[in-house]
Amino acid sequence: MGIHIYFKSLSNLEGIIRCPGKFKYQEHSVASHSFKVTKIAQFLATVEEMNGTSIDWKLVYEKAINHDYSELFTGDIMTPVKYALPKLKELFTQVEESMIRDFLDKEFPAEFQEIYEQRFREGKDETIEGKILAISDKIDLLYESFGEIIKGNPEPLFTQIYQEALETILLYKDMHCVQYFINNILQEIIQEETALCSTVQKITREALSKAV
Amino acid sequence: MGIHIYFKSLSNLEGIIRCPGKFKYQEHSVASHSFKVTKIAQFLATVEEMNGTSIDWKLVYEKAINHDYSELFTGDIMTPVKYALPKLKELFTQVEESMIRDFLDKEFPAEFQEIYEQRFREGKDETIEGKILAISDKIDLLYESFGEIIKGNPEPLFTQIYQEALETILLYKDMHCVQYFINNILQEIIQEETALCSTVQKITREALSKAV
Amino acid sequence: MGIHIYFKSLSNLEGIIRCPGKFKYQEHSVASHSFKVTKIAQFLATVEEMNGTSIDWKLVYEKAINHDYSELFTGDIMTPVKYALPKLKELFTQVEESMIRDFLDKEFPAEFQEIYEQRFREGKDETIEGKILAISDKIDLLYESFGEIIKGNPEPLFTQIYQEALETILLYKDMHCVQYFINNILQEIIQEETALCSTVQKITREALSKAV
Amino acid sequence: MGIHIYFKSLSNLEGIIRCPGKFKYQEHSVASHSFKVTKIAQFLATVEEMNGTSIDWKLVYEKAINHDYSELFTGDIMTPVKYALPKLKELFTQVEESMIRDFLDKEFPAEFQEIYEQRFREGKDETIEGKILAISDKIDLLYESFGEIIKGNPEPLFTQIYQEALETILLYKDMHCVQYFINNILQEIIQEETALCSTVQKITREALSKAV
Amino acid sequence: MGIHIYFKSLSNLEGIIRCPGKFKYQEHSVASHSFKVTKIAQFLATVEEMNGTSIDWKLVYEKAINHDYSELFTGDIMTPVKYALPKLKELFTQVEESMIRDFLDKEFPAEFQEIYEQRFREGKDETIEGKILAISDKIDLLYESFGEIIKGNPEPLFTQIYQEALETILLYKDMHCVQYFINNILQEIIQEETALCSTVQKITREALSKAV
Amino acid sequence: MGIHIYFKSLSNLEGIIRCPGKFKYQEHSVASHSFKVTKIAQFLATVEEMNGTSIDWKLVYEKAINHDYSELFTGDIMTPVKYALPKLKELFTQVEESMIRDFLDKEFPAEFQEIYEQRFREGKDETIEGKILAISDKIDLLYESFGEIIKGNPEPLFTQIYQEALETILLYKDMHCVQYFINNILQEIIQEETALCSTVQKITREALSKAV
Repeated sequence: MGIHIYFKSLSNLEGIIRCPGKFKYQEHSVASHSFKVTKIAQFLATVEEMNGTSIDWKLVYEKAINHDYSELFTGDIMTPVKYALPKLKELFTQVEESMIRDFLDKEFPAEFQEIYEQRFREGKDETIEGKILAISDKIDLLYESFGEIIKGNPEPLFTQIYQEALETILLYKDMHCVQYFINNILQEIIQEETALCSTVQKITREALSKAV
Repeated sequence: MGIHIYFKSLSNLEGIIRCPGKFKYQEHSVASHSFKVTKIAQFLATVEEMNGTSIDWKLVYEKAINHDYSELFTGDIMTPVKYALPKLKELFTQVEESMIRDFLDKEFPAEFQEIYEQRFREGKDETIEGKILAISDKIDLLYESFGEIIKGNPEPLFTQIYQEALETILLYKDMHCVQYFINNILQEIIQEETALCSTVQKITREALSKAV
Repeated sequence: MGIHIYFKSLSNLEGIIRCPGKFKYQEHSVASHSFKVTKIAQFLATVEEMNGTSIDWKLVYEKAINHDYSELFTGDIMTPVKYALPKLKELFTQVEESMIRDFLDKEFPAEFQEIYEQRFREGKDETIEGKILAISDKIDLLYESFGEIIKGNPEPLFTQIYQEALETILLYKDMHCVQYFINNILQEIIQEETALCSTVQKITREALSKAV
Repeated sequence: MGIHIYFKSLSNLEGIIRCPGKFKYQEHSVASHSFKVTKIAQFLATVEEMNGTSIDWKLVYEKAINHDYSELFTGDIMTPVKYALPKLKELFTQVEESMIRDFLDKEFPAEFQEIYEQRFREGKDETIEGKILAISDKIDLLYESFGEIIKGNPEPLFTQIYQEALETILLYKDMHCVQYFINNILQEIIQEETALCSTVQKITREALSKAV
Repeated sequence: MGIHIYFKSLSNLEGIIRCPGKFKYQEHSVASHSFKVTKIAQFLATVEEMNGTSIDWKLVYEKAINHDYSELFTGDIMTPVKYALPKLKELFTQVEESMIRDFLDKEFPAEFQEIYEQRFREGKDETIEGKILAISDKIDLLYESFGEIIKGNPEPLFTQIYQEALETILLYKDMHCVQYFINNILQEIIQEETALCSTVQKITREALSKAV
Repeated sequence: MGIHIYFKSLSNLEGIIRCPGKFKYQEHSVASHSFKVTKIAQFLATVEEMNGTSIDWKLVYEKAINHDYSELFTGDIMTPVKYALPKLKELFTQVEESMIRDFLDKEFPAEFQEIYEQRFREGKDETIEGKILAISDKIDLLYESFGEIIKGNPEPLFTQIYQEALETILLYKDMHCVQYFINNILQEIIQEETALCSTVQKITREALSKAV
């Protein structure tokens, strides 16, 4: 029925809970996550620009705000499943693309189809904006898992997620924004956590020593 | 770490919400669904046995109580995705099986592995007990969608689910338990709904007229 | 109106929360509890059978899946109330039975009444299957309270529940499945908890030393 | 440990949900209910006083704010159970009183025991203040069920509750405050509901015609 | 439309959550808070009366049960905002009063307007009953923050709230009920917390040493 | 403590619920709302650009994603309060600005203060991007209230909100994106609602006839 269906669909992302099935003190929806990733990307791009990197701001925002829209069609598939077989990952991407194609054909007037097909595409490419998206996505995941650890969640899963998120961020350690993250934000995270427990500190130091 | 992990994992099924992302007046977890499917299967098998069908009760219960345990590993993947490409469905089943295999290898002591591998297998086969599972699964889905329709959920999705669930049940219309369902339970559902709206009645009559 | 009312009533068990009024990090419904008890009973019966005990599987499942259905009629009455006066407990059982009798008379077609009256009866008798139900019920309660303790619930109630559940399980220490529970699962629970706090370990050791 | 335990216990009443197990669009806790009953009693007593009735205000408030405190000990027992057998009701009251007695002995310093024993007693006696409590309790119940009916709850239970609550209120139709309720508030309820459905109006007119 | 609107509005206070936006293990509504403040005020007034203070019980209850009703009109405005500029606080009070005036004019029949205008007025004046309200309000806030601290909430906000609430209570240290609070209840709070952590103990001792 | 506090604060916006105190079938947080407003603004700016309007995309996104961040400091103040006295609105804006200024001074390193002060400023100015923000904000509000109306929320508030939101949008009827909204999206909204009720249709036609 057109753009009305698209606008209504945004609300469905409020009802898709991240990391389903695991006990969490605080739940996060895909909609909230997208909001936070966009705000984080805004900050990272600001740091990059201040350090002389040329930023395509339209692209930064477009990638961040749209990056999980396809979860509307596929639901929340656990990452280990998605990546269990290389062939599956490939086919899965194929299905995802064909479902978005179908949605665009069915709901979007012809004049908007091309522009939205581009917007709904995977944004984590090799451009500076694609990297900023990849890092922002992991920083929010790191904050979500940090929030559980510091509240005392006994599930080891969240220290694993924290560790994996941090290690992925550190892959981009040559970027100005990751340098800023390491030298400033990460220190503040460790400081906050020290008084309460020492898990995050230990994981963080190990990941840093391996990466830097 | 063994059976402790298995027992703890049961609680995770309390946190996987069925049909994620769609607004629902009442949410249902995979754990609750499994409970209801087992109770429904118990009733259907009772009807069959009363009509002279020979029932392997151990199998009825085993299939029903375990039938969605694998959602623990794969999360709630929306059905249209799972079936979008025949090749994907096949690979997906492969992944599911290999994840359960991994879990058994890692957590289950050797003496229990074989028996649990069998229990975690897809139960909807051509045996009478497999058919009872397939029907029970759809009856609970029909009740979940009926619950939304009768509360006034404006989302057309739930009338679609009601219709598809009913049509699948009617495929087994030669079974005694489905005959009982058609002649008794379905009439009570229609009666309850008549005073309030007429959607369910209309869909039900159409599905019945096509099937019977 | 018949079986429709019975099927609908299953959903009400999703809305009865166990241990009402106490702060809990994670809530459990009667429906979820029944699911977990059935899965635990399945495991315990498997252990018994492997050790040569003859198991009536139909009975194991029937007792487990139905064991709390009567909470539908009586609500969640706190155990101390139920057992406060011996006379009250007796009368209470009388009322419970008469309410189930009324429900069966009113909703169940004649041909199903006898079989369901039996299914809704108290299942914790002196048979091997009755004992497996009693143990499974307490194991799930032990897991529910363990989940609160390990998440840091400051309410002493949950260590009391853990202790009482464990002591009841240990009454059956001559059974193979309880031996397995003591020698394997309980050790894993203690191990998991050691790193985090020491309450469970202490209670468990004390209960074990008294019982074994 | 004293009054600290008493103050902490107030928060438990925030976690006891009224009418457990039934689907409700809006849930109400015992704490919220007590707040609303006290506010309603305040209004009813105001009407009485304006019409020349002598009111013991201390008693009105004391009865209203404390009237469901004992649910802390007994949980939410469904009314049909409580009243199923006259002997049970009697024994139940006995248990309730003995549990409150125990709580007072254990937690309350001697100097407060007598005054609180009186406050925790059943308040619905034949005094004007006892009647105001009985009516206020039913008016809040009527509002809770009206809230479900007007939101479209298909469960017939809520029209039953509405009807029974109204009929109990009308038993006191000789009181000024019930006269005010009938002539003013009830008319406003009917007016609000007319545009949306006609269940409440019909039930109300019938109950009124029988009572007045 | 009259008193019906007033009675319905009470339910809205069940939906206004205190301290919005901060992560809390346990949420409290304005309705529940009002219930608890009234129960606490009842106790404090009892202590005062036992020590010879003359208490206007009607006033104690009236002030407590109504003290946050105006949040219905203004929502939950964070305290730092309300008090940020002296001029703002003044204007804010003006607006609050004019909104209540409007509500009374619009919904309340003439005969009840004066009495309710008085009831909805700020109750924390210099009378003994006004002081009891001020203390009760802070004691419930202290319990809300204590509940978070003891459950392990890492947010420093809750230790701040605990401290500020305690310091305000101690301003009234010459009153009998605050003496009772210091000598008995506060000791029990510290005792409960000692085994678990030491934040509350430290803050409490410091506040006490400054105040007493 | 720096940017860490800023990143953590984003999560607080997940906990601020819009329109507190009113019964809603579906709740929306400020974080989710910001996400949806940004997606809507993206669409509206696309329509404008296709019709030849020059768009500063960086500004569109920046205004949309940041527009409600200040609710972190002030909480959710009901609109009628904010605008009750012109003087109050003015002072309120002053307070809001001074609180953001304080937050920036305290948490943000000097190099980011200027850029973020600008980002946290009121974005609804007379630029094309400011107007797109104003319209997007109201379109999401219209969808939130439409969602309640179509689910059967009996509270008249939501038809009021729908009407006021629509009337504000229609003030910008000379813009291409509002023309598109009127001619396409609004028609689809009416169509969806027609089958279910007629409130939205009636309000919409009246607002359109007055405006266009």
